Order: sequence, then structure tokens, then C-alpha cells
Amino acid sequence: MPGSPCTKDIQKNINGSTSAASPVTFTELQLLMAHPELPSEQDSSHEEKKEKDPVQPGPTKLRRARVRFLKIVSYFAGDMEVFAKWMEKQFFLLQLLDWVLRGAAQVMFVNNPLSGLIIFAGLILQNYWWALNGFVGTLFATISALILQQSRGAIAAGLYGYNGILVGLLMAVFSNAGNWYWYLLLPNIFMSMMCPIVSSALASINSRWDLPVFTLPFNILVCLHMVATGHFNHHFPQVLIQPRSELPNITWAEIDVAKLFMSVPVGVGQVYGCDNPWTGGIFIISLFISSPITCAHAVLGSAVGMVSGLALAAPFGDIYFGLWGYNCVLACIAIGGMFYALTWQVHLLAITCAFFCAYLGSAIANIMSAFGLPACTWPFCLSALTFLLLTTGTKRIFKLPLAKVTYPEKNLCFYWKMKKQEKKDKAEKERKEKEEQQKAIEEEVILNEKEQLRLELERMEEGRAASEASEAGNNKTRAEDEAPGVEQQGTEEEIRQNEIIQVTIGENES
Amino acid sequence: MPGSPCTKDIQKNINGSTSAASPVTFTELQLLMAHPELPSEQDSSHEEKKEKDPVQPGPTKLRRARVRFLKIVSYFAGDMEVFAKWMEKQFFLLQLLDWVLRGAAQVMFVNNPLSGLIIFAGLILQNYWWALNGFVGTLFATISALILQQSRGAIAAGLYGYNGILVGLLMAVFSNAGNWYWYLLLPNIFMSMMCPIVSSALASINSRWDLPVFTLPFNILVCLHMVATGHFNHHFPQVLIQPRSELPNITWAEIDVAKLFMSVPVGVGQVYGCDNPWTGGIFIISLFISSPITCAHAVLGSAVGMVSGLALAAPFGDIYFGLWGYNCVLACIAIGGMFYALTWQVHLLAITCAFFCAYLGSAIANIMSAFGLPACTWPFCLSALTFLLLTTGTKRIFKLPLAKVTYPEKNLCFYWKMKKQEKKDKAEKERKEKEEQQKAIEEEVILNEKEQLRLELERMEEGRAASEASEAGNNKTRAEDEAPGVEQQGTEEEIRQNEIIQVTIGENES
Amino acid sequence: MPGSPCTKDIQKNINGSTSAASPVTFTELQLLMAHPELPSEQDSSHEEKKEKDPVQPGPTKLRRARVRFLKIVSYFAGDMEVFAKWMEKQFFLLQLLDWVLRGAAQVMFVNNPLSGLIIFAGLILQNYWWALNGFVGTLFATISALILQQSRGAIAAGLYGYNGILVGLLMAVFSNAGNWYWYLLLPNIFMSMMCPIVSSALASINSRWDLPVFTLPFNILVCLHMVATGHFNHHFPQVLIQPRSELPNITWAEIDVAKLFMSVPVGVGQVYGCDNPWTGGIFIISLFISSPITCAHAVLGSAVGMVSGLALAAPFGDIYFGLWGYNCVLACIAIGGMFYALTWQVHLLAITCAFFCAYLGSAIANIMSAFGLPACTWPFCLSALTFLLLTTGTKRIFKLPLAKVTYPEKNLCFYWKMKKQEKKDKAEKERKEKEEQQKAIEEEVILNEKEQLRLELERMEEGRAASEASEAGNNKTRAEDEAPGVEQQGTEEEIRQNEIIQVTIGENES
Repeated sequence: MPGSPCTKDIQKNINGSTSAASPVTFTELQLLMAHPELPSEQDSSHEEKKEKDPVQPGPTKLRRARVRFLKIVSYFAGDMEVFAKWMEKQFFLLQLLDWVLRGAAQVMFVNNPLSGLIIFAGLILQNYWWALNGFVGTLFATISALILQQSRGAIAAGLYGYNGILVGLLMAVFSNAGNWYWYLLLPNIFMSMMCPIVSSALASINSRWDLPVFTLPFNILVCLHMVATGHFNHHFPQVLIQPRSELPNITWAEIDVAKLFMSVPVGVGQVYGCDNPWTGGIFIISLFISSPITCAHAVLGSAVGMVSGLALAAPFGDIYFGLWGYNCVLACIAIGGMFYALTWQVHLLAITCAFFCAYLGSAIANIMSAFGLPACTWPFCLSALTFLLLTTGTKRIFKLPLAKVTYPEKNLCFYWKMKKQEKKDKAEKERKEKEEQQKAIEEEVILNEKEQLRLELERMEEGRAASEASEAGNNKTRAEDEAPGVEQQGTEEEIRQNEIIQVTIGENES
Repeated sequence: MPGSPCTKDIQKNINGSTSAASPVTFTELQLLMAHPELPSEQDSSHEEKKEKDPVQPGPTKLRRARVRFLKIVSYFAGDMEVFAKWMEKQFFLLQLLDWVLRGAAQVMFVNNPLSGLIIFAGLILQNYWWALNGFVGTLFATISALILQQSRGAIAAGLYGYNGILVGLLMAVFSNAGNWYWYLLLPNIFMSMMCPIVSSALASINSRWDLPVFTLPFNILVCLHMVATGHFNHHFPQVLIQPRSELPNITWAEIDVAKLFMSVPVGVGQVYGCDNPWTGGIFIISLFISSPITCAHAVLGSAVGMVSGLALAAPFGDIYFGLWGYNCVLACIAIGGMFYALTWQVHLLAITCAFFCAYLGSAIANIMSAFGLPACTWPFCLSALTFLLLTTGTKRIFKLPLAKVTYPEKNLCFYWKMKKQEKKDKAEKERKEKEEQQKAIEEEVILNEKEQLRLELERMEEGRAASEASEAGNNKTRAEDEAPGVEQQGTEEEIRQNEIIQVTIGENES
Repeated sequence: MPGSPCTKDIQKNINGSTSAASPVTFTELQLLMAHPELPSEQDSSHEEKKEKDPVQPGPTKLRRARVRFLKIVSYFAGDMEVFAKWMEKQFFLLQLLDWVLRGAAQVMFVNNPLSGLIIFAGLILQNYWWALNGFVGTLFATISALILQQSRGAIAAGLYGYNGILVGLLMAVFSNAGNWYWYLLLPNIFMSMMCPIVSSALASINSRWDLPVFTLPFNILVCLHMVATGHFNHHFPQVLIQPRSELPNITWAEIDVAKLFMSVPVGVGQVYGCDNPWTGGIFIISLFISSPITCAHAVLGSAVGMVSGLALAAPFGDIYFGLWGYNCVLACIAIGGMFYALTWQVHLLAITCAFFCAYLGSAIANIMSAFGLPACTWPFCLSALTFLLLTTGTKRIFKLPLAKVTYPEKNLCFYWKMKKQEKKDKAEKERKEKEEQQKAIEEEVILNEKEQLRLELERMEEGRAASEASEAGNNKTRAEDEAPGVEQQGTEEEIRQNEIIQVTIGENES
């Protein structure tokens, strides 16, 4: 993680030049990137810091209080790096719990155990049985990844858990056997343990294009389980999903605006298959804790989904139930700052992607219903992958290398640093070019001086040569031999070069 | 574009040695590649031209008239490069119109605004509303590509427009809301503007195998729109398509041969969703203008499709309606000279591909009908991609690098040039090898001569040494020291080398 | 083929140290790898053999008989390399027959004409018409590959035939027109000839991940044919397959244990679409001849499939009919020793893959039935590809490079050799490191000795210098000039280096 160099920029903003052009909203984002290790910075670039320190003595108590607040925020916001480092030395089961919680939050691209804890609270509020299944799924997916000796860093970031929680949850949600049907845990554990295998396989393919696997393993495995058993099964029956076969009854007069607004948090909740608006609200809070940009895009995505549903004449029930929202939530988060650095262009792209995702969601839901399947998060995966594969000529749409993706605020920081570096490199290059020009001019001046010297010398030489010639005619110097030839040559450049030789020869003579 | 060196070959054929082995049919194809800049050729290889000029004085008026005719043809055949260059300096809206027209023709792989204009005429003949939708689709797809800063060259070649025209046209064709339902323009514009995004994303994947995206973006987006809304939708209802569920009524006695023959142009027309045979005829003409090879393969493909339909016992109605033809048309064009250099083997491969495509077309139509979808051009895309991924041991099936693909005649020219170059390289290599052999033989001769010389010298030396030895016994030369050792050594080679040394030493001595 | 070095290891086991730790079951496997060229081994490592020969004089007749038996076994086990070499010089039609037989066996990853012959016998036992179609399919697929100039080695290994036999067989099995409907041979031949094209295209894609194409071409082409014609077709009607629409009648009391056990060989037989348990038994024998590991995994896979069927509450009829087995058979063979080197971890992975494959089989069967299609071997292909794309940190799960895959026993041998080489390299490296350390120590000792010498010399020098100084004060040596500066320098290292210089200078002086 390129954390430490990054934080120095923030330090600059906090300590000294906050007045310098950074708007208020952006400062708030930067707070989340502040590192607690700041005071004990031990970098080679101490001189940089010293330059800024003299500026600090002035600030009031308010500023100092603010710095302390930021420090506290940095402990539980973002990806809680300090906590992760502290965890590394703890008891294995505690570590596992950390990974499971991070896994739970990673569904929304949030690598934060606190968010994970809050999300589990939301799930418990929704349904005990579902929450249990979700927990079992995350746990066994993580364990399976450990058994298969996957990358420890990825496991610790919860990247092997998020498909597990979705598999566990959604298998419980779509089971027709009712709550507390304990046998369901068997396929749940099996499918959760398959998650890392499918993840690893898909990563082998997607990594060729530097793409993440998103929730594709979950989509594949849940659809696999549902269609393998189906509605008509003795052991693991699924809820009946059938394609629409008649015109839905839509009366615009009957629209319930309150429910429509409620559909925004419900849409966020539906990412985890929850239809309780309070659960959705809790999820939104958990997002805000880790990354406000993510949170804003989640809400925006859900709203875009709702609007798309109305535009495509979807039954109101589906819209109220959040079915038009959850894919757009994920797509909007993924494009809006997570895998692209957030600029205005990327923000617009994220909204476009959310609309496209809503369209695709409707299409996939209709296709899948022919097999008795829900849409899962296929629409999100496919639309986000499409938008990540996009190549444009603009530099303002910058896709982060997959290894550098953390959370929107830090990504933005990375992007700014990169741009600054680019600018610096450019300025450096220009400076060098200027210097070279300057040098060339100076050399020209020197050459001219030498030229003058040479002419003088030549005149002297000619005088001497004339006098010498009368004495000893056969003792000609090389300089004298060449000199006439030079004066008859065409290009000015050659003349100058020959003159320099003459000068040095002249110097040797005298 | 490797245009200018290419045209020189044609020049040769036209000016001088037309009698030399090039059959009549091929000359006709070459006409289309003749460049208007020919008279003002300013290449470094003037000597080549001069060699041919003396041959020209002879030719009659007929030949001169023919050259003039070719020059005129070259202005509007092929990809109209001169026109494109002239366009670059024009007003932006005029340029945009050029790109839109080229986009309209690019559906059939034709990069020619005149063909595009004729195609639009055919569309207007078919249906005003459809033509309007097609135009809007092409326009907005091109604009979207400009906004996303896609490659200007590709935009100017119409490569971002052809999916747009198909999206626009087919959304109108499959809409159940009737003509002039103006709201349809909204999803039309949205989907058209999504075209460059999906194109770019698919190109990122396909470029790994140097494959084009064909009409995949169109297939994806139209299917997406149709299945997202479906037949039972208030805003954008689609026509009802249902899977076959009973034996079709096929009586071979009832076959209408006239309609069967008519199905060939109808099949070409169905590429743009048009069932009017006149429209299909106009399309065929537009193809002929740009590239006769393309035109021939289009008609051939349509015929193959019709035959396949009969072979697989398709309902006659489908065959008459051209549904078996349009995919084969595209597949046959793509394989037959467009992405492979046209040889007899490739021609056969194109016909095979057309049959495979017809089979696949029936399969995909049956699958898609389960979701209420038409087959679109999925069969063409999948079969052409399969045949382009093929790797064989024959050099006669040569897949052009994607960047070199222009139109069949020019591709063929590129292939011939490459082969000639290869032959030349091979001849050069052989010549060099021969020269080296010659050199080796000469060296052998020289060595033998030296050997003779050495033996003589040695004998002389021995005589002298004997006489000298008697005079001064302690003044031995190095050559004398080595000589006895050499004569006792084993391998012949070493002896010879040492002898050469002796010779030179001996020469130094004398 | 890295055959000859491999056999030497086996030789060791056979001749000498069979008592050394190799269990009985493994010896049996190794037998199959014994080469008939053993007696005439002409390797550079004769000394290795000589070392072992003295051990041999003791062994009884039994051992000698065993060696002879192994030699005979090696003629027709494994991939029958000797036979293949002998075949190369035979009449073309005989060669073609060899390729066809190998192609028939390659369905089960067995490259052995004898197995192929036995498999054809099994097919004839099942159904004459099916066997004929299978033969025609293999033949034309091989011919088509020859026409398309595919790799001769792959053709000779039957890698272009196995899709052909499956296409031929399954098109006959699923045809609703009854046996001896001769027209069926037409699409059979067309589809078989398409096999190499589709194989080659898929290989272009899969080779990027070093993956085989498995039976994907067969799946694609048979599904294509079946869905293109469908149940309601006049020329080529297919059997009617419909999705399940009600709860199957499963009474656990009615279970027939005999039939359940019989389902294991039936499952193996269903790989070729045969439901006769005797045919399945014959197939098992044919597998055993070539490779016991393959055979064991085939039976294991079939059993896993049967258990999965029971676990997922499948109708008993389907389980008895072997529909749950054949995909697991193939998946278990592929993972268990064929593409991975067989270790205990890989064995467990193969069983996991078989379970996953069974699950996937049920899912795909349900999806395909919506289009009137059977599951074919899609589940096997997809599950095996997923498990081959898996990347783990363990070295015990070693995926063989595709070019090195032969049969499980030889693969294992390759893996062992590689590991031994690695160990050797490691030991070599360690040895070198030790040597270097030793050398460093020795150098240290020498340096210390020089140090002592230097001190002595210095003392002598000082004494002499003092005496000389009184005589000639202006004749200072360089060594004396440097010496004081050296003694005042900081680091010990520099001092030592300078001292060495002094020593040498001192030596020159004296």
C-alpha cells in the first residue's frame, strides 16, 4: 500500500496550506485518509516537513482540535489499516472474525470490519436465520480460501468472504423450505467453500484484462444451486419464479410517492437481499463510516434504478421492493470512484452505467425468470465489466490499476499524486529544455568571442608569417595550410569548427 | 494505408503487361483499386516508372479511354479515399454526414459514403419511419463516439456508426407500438449512444485475438432492449415471438420457385431488416459499386442460406422472408475476402461458413424465441468469429492483420504484394547462399594455390637453411622452429593453417 | 516425449531397490510405464546402470519372469508408443484406422488404439446403428482435420477424432427418426467435419490459459444440430425433452440397491450415451488396460455422481440410467491425475470436482431442457475448466503444462522427476553456498596471515626507514608516503585493503 507518501500530501493540507484552493467538501474526504502514524513519520524527506513547520505555530486551538478529530476518524474510517496491522499479531480466531467482518462489507467494496459489524446488525434486524446463513457462508468461504492457500493479503481484506456471505444469504432468501430448515446449511457450506475455487478460476481469466471478479462467483453458484434443485425438489425447494405472461396492471394514479422514496434505502438493502428499509438505512450508515463517496454513489445508484423502473413501465411492486435499485447501487459505486478515479467525467459515466445497469437488470430478470431464477447481481457484474473495459482518449477517465484500488478517497489521492508527478516531470523536462537552450546561447557567445580572438590571432599570424616567409619559406605550419581552405568552404558551421581548431593550434604555437 | 505502393502494381497491369497472365475477371477487380493520384505519383522509385513508360507509347485510344474510365471509377469505388481526404478539410456537419453514410454501409463491411447513400434510399423505399430511426441511430452512435474520444480514424471510417443504424432500425422494426411512435426515439438514442461503449469494451477483449467486434454490440443492445421491455410492456411493447410448438405444415408440392429465387435479394435486404426485394436489389447495387467481390459473396451467401433452409425443412414462409439468408450474407462476405485474402481455399471456406451459419441461425432463432427474441445477427457473429479463430497449416488461408483490412480487392493486393515480397526474400536468400558457396569454393582454390606456393617456398627454405646452418648455427628463425612441429601434427586442417602462417612469415623474411 | 529418462527410474525400481519404500499399488502403476526399449538402452549414463547391475545377479527366476511380463504389458498399456512408432511406416489407411481407434478412446483421455477397439466392441454390443454413426463421425472428423492441415501429432493422437465419435453417436442417440435412418449420415458427416474447425477455434482461445478444449466442440455442435432441427422437424426430428414441471415421485422405500450399484458402470457407459451396464463394464476394462489410475477415477466419479443424485433428490430413474454419473466420470478423470499430477491433495480435489460437476450437471440439465436439449457433457467441461483455472499456493497441486500431458502414470513420473530435479538443484545450490562460505573462511585465514606478515614487515621497514632516513632524506618510497594516511582512515575494511597493497609494494621493494 502506498500509504505513507500519500499521507504526506494530506499532512500538507492539514498543517499548513489548507487555504490553498482545496474546497471544504474535499477536505472532508481527505480526513479519511489521514494516518495515525503521521506524528512518527520517519522519511528521508525531512526537509520538506521542516519547511512547513514554521507555518504552523500560528494556528488556533480549533485547528488543533480538528487535527485530533481527524486522527480519531482515521482509526475507523477508510480501510482501518492501523486496526488491520494490530490484528496481525492477534489470536487466529480473532483474525478470522476480522476477515469475516471485512468480507461482509466487501460486498459493497468496503474493506472495513466496523462497517461489516454494522451490516451484520442490519441483517439480524432483517432476519435471524438469514443472518446466520450469511455468517456461515462468509466463514466457510474464508476457511476454504485458507485451505486452498490463496493470497493471505486478499483473504485478510475480505476478498474471499463477500461471495460467501451473498451465497449464504441468498440461498436462505430463495429457499422455499422456510426459516430454520437446518439441512440448508449443508449446500450452503458446500457452495460457500466452492466460492474461492470459482473466484480463483475467474480471476485467472479476468486478470488478463486487469478486471476484478466482482460477485460473479456468487451469481454462478447461487444460480447453480437454485436451478439444480428448482421449485419442484424434495430436499431443497426454491421459491417459484415465473416469466411475466400478461400486461402488468399499472395505473399511474395509484403511485405511492412515500414508498417510492422509501425504495431508495430498500434498494441499498436489496444488495444483501433485505427488503426492510431500516436495514437499508443501516447499510447506508455503514458505508458512510468507511467512505462518503461510496455512500453518495450508493444512494444515487438506487435513485437511478428507481427512475429507470418508472421509465420502463415496471410494476410498482418491483420498484417499491428495491429490485430496480440494488444492481445500480453496486454499479454506481464500482464506476464512481472505486475502479476509476473520481472526476466529473467519471461521475457522469457512473450515472450512465447505473442507467445501463437498470436496463440490463430488467433484461436479465426476464431471461432468468424463464429458468425460475432471480437476476442476482448479474446485471451489475456485466454492466460494470463493460464500463471497465471501455477505452477512451480522455485522460480524465483514469482506470486505476487493480492492485492500487483501495477506496474512492484514497484512489483519488493516488490519482492526484500521479497527476502532480506527471506535471512535475513535465515541468522538469521543460526546465531542462530551457537550460539547454540557455547553454546553447552561452556557447554561442563563447564561440563568438573565440571568433574575435581568432581573427585577431590570424591577423597577427599573417603579419608574423609574412615576416617569417621572407626568412624560411619551407617551414610552413599546419594552421597556415588549412586556413585558406577554410575561408573558401561553403557552410558557416564548418567554418566555425575549423576556426576552433585553428584557435587551439594557435594557442599551442604561442 | 499502404495505398500508394499498391497502386503501382495495378499501374503495371494497366499500362503495360495486361497480357501477362492476369485473367479478365481479375482485371475488373483491379480497376477498383486504381488511384486517381496515379498521374501525380511522386515516389522515390521513378526508375521503375520510367522503365514502363517506353512501353506505353504504342497503346491505342481504347487503352487510353480505359485508363480514364478506371480513374473515374476509382473516385467512387472501394473506400473512396480521395473523397475522404477531401472531406477532412470540410465543414464539421458535412464530415459528420460522411461518417453517418459510411456507418450505414459498414454494416456490410463497405466503407463508402455513396453506398451508404444508396442504402438509405433503399431504406426509405422500405419504410420512412424505419429509415428515420436508422439515421437517428447512426447519428447518435457517431456523436457518442466523438464524446468518448474514440479513435478519429475509426469514426471517420463509419466503424462506430454501423451498430447504431442497426440498433435504430431493428428497434423500430420489432416495436409493437406501430410507426411514428415518437417516444421510441428515446430508447433509440440511449441505446445508440451505448453502442460505442459496448463496442470499445468488446474490442478490448476481441483485440487479444486480433478479431473485429462485428455487429455484437448491436446484438447485445437490441436483445437487451427487447427482453427488458418485452411484449407485455406499456411503454415499449415488442412484437410477439414464440417458440415453435408443433410440426410446421410443409408440402413440397406447394413450393413457389419464383418466391424462392426472390428470397436471395430479400435475404440481402434482411441484413437491415427489410423484406422488400427491391430494397434488397438496391443494397446489392450499392455493394457492387464499392466492391464486386463483396457483392458476389453477398448473393452467394443468401443463396446458401436459402438452400440450407430447404435442407433443414424450415417453413417456406421463413425462407421467402429472407430469414435464412441475411446471416449467411454477412458471414460469406466476412470470410470471403474481407478478413481472409481471397483464394480458392478461402472461397470454399466462406461457403462452408455460410452453411454453418445457416445451421447456427436456425439453432439460435429457436433458442432466442424462448425469450421472445429474434436471432438478430448472432449467428453471423458467432460463426464468423469461429472461422476467424481457425488456425491451419496452409499458407493459402491467410488471415489479414486487422489493421490491414480494407476491402476484398485491396486485401488481395496486399496479400499478393506480401507473397511477392516473400518470394523475393527467398530468392535473395538463395542467391546469397549460392554466392557464399561460390566464395567458399574460390577460397578453397586460393588456399590450394597458397599450399602449392608454400611447398615450393619450404623446399627453397630448406635449401637455404641447410646452406645457412653451416655458416651461422645459432641464428635460427621462428619459422624454422615451428616448421618441424607442424609437420608432425595430426589433423590436416591444422597443418594447413600453420602452413599459411609459415608462408606469411616466409614472405616477411624474403 | 520424455520417455527414455523416465523409464530409467522405473528400471531402478524393478531391478534393484523394489524393497525401498514403494508400495505394491504403486509398483503396479509403474509397470505400465516400463518401456520395451529398456534392454537396448543407449544412454550416456551407463555408469548408473552398472552400479545397479551387481545387485541383480541374486534375483530369482520370478523376478526375471516379472520383467518379461512388464515388457509385454508395456506394449499395449499407456499410450502404446512403440505401436505408434511402428504405425508411422505403415499404409495410410491402416494409420487412419489407428487414429480413429485412438480418437474413440480419447473421449476418456486414453490415447490407446486397443482401448479404442474394445470401446467399439462395447458400442456394437449396445447398438449397431449407433456404433456405425460413431465410426463415421470419428472418420470424417479425422479426415477434415487432415484437409485443414492440423497438427499431424494431434491427429495421430486421436485428438481430432474424439469429438467426432461423440457427435456421431449422440446425433444417432437423440434422433427421433429411429435406427437406420440413413439420411442422418448427412448432418452427421457435416457436423463431424465441423469438429476440427470448432476445435481449432476454441483452442485458439483456451490456449491462452493453457487449457484443453475437452469435449466443448461436441457439446456445441450436437446442441446446435438438435436445437436447429428440434422435435418438430420433418427431416431430422429429435427426441422430446421437456423441463420438469411437477414434484417427482420419490419414495425412499422403493429404492433398488442392485440397480443403484449397477448405475456405476452404466454411468461410465453414458459417456458414450450407452445405458447397457455390460457396455459400461467393457469401457472400464478398456480404461484399465491403458491406465489403472484413469480407471479408478472413472469408477470413483461415477459413484460420486450417484451419491450426489441421491443427495439432491433426483428421480431414481435418472440415477439408474447413469445420467448423474457420466459427467463426474470425465471430470474425475481429468482432474485426478490427467491434467494435475496425482497427489493426495489432487485426489481430494478430483472428488470435490466430481461433486461440483454433479451439482452443475443437474443445473445444466434443467436449463437445457427448456430448449429441448440434453445436458451433453457441458457440466464436465465447465467444472473441469474451472478446476484447471484454479491457482493455489500449494506445490502439491501441480498443473502439468498442456504439452506434457500424456496419461496419469507418466504424468506422475514427470512430476516426480521434476521434483527430484528441484531437490537436486536446491542441494546443489546449498552445496555451493556452503563452499562459498568455506572459501570465505579460508580467505579470512589467509588475510589474517598476511596481516601478521604485514605487521612484521612494517616493523622491519620502520627500522630500515629510520636508518635510511639518516642517510638520504629525500628518497621516500610511495609505500611510506601512504602508510600514515592509511593508519588514520576510519573503516577497518579500507585499512585491510591498503595493507595488502603495502605488503605487495613492500615485497617489490625488498
